[in-house]
Amino acid sequence: MDYKSVFEKAIDRLHEEGRYRVFIDILRNKGAFPNARCFAGHNGPKPITVWCSNDYLAMGQHPDVLAAMEEALHNVGAGSGGTRNIGGNTHYHVELEAELADLHGKETALLFTSGYISNEATLATLGKILPGCVIFSDELNHASMIAGIRNSGCEKQVWRHNDLAHLEELLEAADPDAPKLIAFESVYSMDGDVAPIAAICDLADKYNALTYCDEVHAVGMYGSRGGGITDRDEVADRVTIIEGTLAKAIGVMGGYIAADQVIVDVIRSYAPGFIFTTSLSPVLVAGALASVRHLKASSVEREGQQAAAAMLKAKFREAGLPVMDSVTHIVPLMVGDPVKAKKISDILLAEYGVYVQPINFPTVPRGTERLRFTPGPSHTEEMMTELTAALVEIWQRLEMQQAAAA
Amino acid sequence: MDYKSVFEKAIDRLHEEGRYRVFIDILRNKGAFPNARCFAGHNGPKPITVWCSNDYLAMGQHPDVLAAMEEALHNVGAGSGGTRNIGGNTHYHVELEAELADLHGKETALLFTSGYISNEATLATLGKILPGCVIFSDELNHASMIAGIRNSGCEKQVWRHNDLAHLEELLEAADPDAPKLIAFESVYSMDGDVAPIAAICDLADKYNALTYCDEVHAVGMYGSRGGGITDRDEVADRVTIIEGTLAKAIGVMGGYIAADQVIVDVIRSYAPGFIFTTSLSPVLVAGALASVRHLKASSVEREGQQAAAAMLKAKFREAGLPVMDSVTHIVPLMVGDPVKAKKISDILLAEYGVYVQPINFPTVPRGTERLRFTPGPSHTEEMMTELTAALVEIWQRLEMQQAAAA
Repeated sequence: MDYKSVFEKAIDRLHEEGRYRVFIDILRNKGAFPNARCFAGHNGPKPITVWCSNDYLAMGQHPDVLAAMEEALHNVGAGSGGTRNIGGNTHYHVELEAELADLHGKETALLFTSGYISNEATLATLGKILPGCVIFSDELNHASMIAGIRNSGCEKQVWRHNDLAHLEELLEAADPDAPKLIAFESVYSMDGDVAPIAAICDLADKYNALTYCDEVHAVGMYGSRGGGITDRDEVADRVTIIEGTLAKAIGVMGGYIAADQVIVDVIRSYAPGFIFTTSLSPVLVAGALASVRHLKASSVEREGQQAAAAMLKAKFREAGLPVMDSVTHIVPLMVGDPVKAKKISDILLAEYGVYVQPINFPTVPRGTERLRFTPGPSHTEEMMTELTAALVEIWQRLEMQQAAAA
Repeated sequence: MDYKSVFEKAIDRLHEEGRYRVFIDILRNKGAFPNARCFAGHNGPKPITVWCSNDYLAMGQHPDVLAAMEEALHNVGAGSGGTRNIGGNTHYHVELEAELADLHGKETALLFTSGYISNEATLATLGKILPGCVIFSDELNHASMIAGIRNSGCEKQVWRHNDLAHLEELLEAADPDAPKLIAFESVYSMDGDVAPIAAICDLADKYNALTYCDEVHAVGMYGSRGGGITDRDEVADRVTIIEGTLAKAIGVMGGYIAADQVIVDVIRSYAPGFIFTTSLSPVLVAGALASVRHLKASSVEREGQQAAAAMLKAKFREAGLPVMDSVTHIVPLMVGDPVKAKKISDILLAEYGVYVQPINFPTVPRGTERLRFTPGPSHTEEMMTELTAALVEIWQRLEMQQAAAA
């Protein structure tokens, strides 16, 4: 058994497919986001503009968030020192869970170390607690949901993306007495489309199914208090479990679920991914608490983001660039080839100081490789004009298809 | 299908077994660890002494760590804003991985959001990359290793805890051509015993197996630079993959592996639990970097911890308390009953201001419920004398078995 050659071949496959990932080494400039410094392949840091951050509202730079983190650091120290059960349950955790429960209009909430683990742990545990459960999963669900569903050991039925007729067909065909769970996202992060949540809940009512909605790309950004698409569409009370993240629009790190007390108690008591891990650092929890509170009261960031996204989409369309349909803040440009997507990204970074990561398989299906821009309230019109001009130049240099400029 | 009653029954089972967990709501007092404040069940915070923290060396309170975190907060902001591949790879991450690789004498290292996910993601991915792999797992391995092994889909062979003869028996019986991985911990955290790493590596050599050693309860605490038991025993170069945490002796949060470049590259490129999650906050990474650097150069904390553990064990033994065999810094007292373990813990907190969590199933096997003390360099002899007297009083009050005082 030659282990090394097996490992080398696994890496070779990635190079051959043009999807070997090189991490760009950056530091953001606090208070001046989306400006940052890039270290890789240059002599010393070079200034860049970040166009692919999921710190969508720049809350990771907000003075209230930073002040809360600094205060916590000096109040209690760096880490929590234990699992939630063994020494790692701080008063910050208790407060943030209450704040998140209120944000989503749920009885209670539960923090995890990441959105990934909140999806994995919750779905896997729910499936184990409900014997014979069938999980109905949207085909574009995130890898962490897929991991949780697989680890639940349940039967999985995959419905075509956002296709209600297909979902109903599958629900109808299932054993009427079997427990059922419909798992989906509110905003699909690589396409920017939105789930028909109310209609999904109608089907859940009709077929007595639980619902699980991943709101990680919506929390903070939609609804009058930032409760996500379920807040905007006023359907939060109809969704059994809402899952969210503290690492994107909230600007910090961590994940959570919000639901009825008894469901959260089951996950808290049975999920290995929750039980056997050191709890979130109180410094992060304090920052997230300040961020959630701010975004409940302020709509300036949300409005700035929506305006920026609309402007960038319009500029891309006017320039004939292949901007994909998106009804949200996410602005994807289709490339359709992993090597070209990486090449465009490399040129943007080296020649234009623009940082946007190519999105390749397995994050998106093969043949749909793309560049994914996430304009926020801090991206200026000037930055957008420069970005569009750079893309047009590169599109022409690489002889890629371009619509007639509008 | 009555979902609520299924959930309620799952919770009722925990109450019936006396292992329903109540999280104690605390805040540590920065700079005065192990002193803290407790919120639960009291009018306002009540002062307590923490005896069950995994911030073993109080590095979560170290001025260098706090200063580094504050500096990072003001340099780059709160969160990383993305996965390692998409915008979340900061210069801090790159530096810490180099520092951890050096700590363990490995080519490179890889950060994860937690030790749990580093075990789960690495073991699951290794098993998938090596078709037909058989994983040999010590029976007391941590839940996160068990999750990773299960999710790998590999054949699992469980060897009796630290039993080399049994391990060899299983290795000998396996297909000589099959890839093999021996997975174990260096320090077992609930008993405080240590794996015979050199002898395990001898067997790995003999049967051409890879080795995976979880050092989470040893990193920072053993070896002249804090590289763990593999450092102390000078066997780090013989272990294929060393896994560690930043959340215990390092005092912050996060996990990692250290290994050859090609292995780390495979995990980095294929593990969903690494790829699809926001990277560690640069604030945490900066703190961990300062902590690792400090503990490489300073042995004061390690020596203080060992002295404290030896003193507490001696005091417990002299008082006739059932202290379990432990060759490490972990000081477990056997109770053997979940209801009694919780009762002792409740009395200690309510009457003596002592916080030590009862350790019940599934963290330890049923019938071996215990109290687990983690004395560190900041626990004084006076605290230990008071703790021992409190335990003796409670042991007598509850009419529990006690050896003749030595």
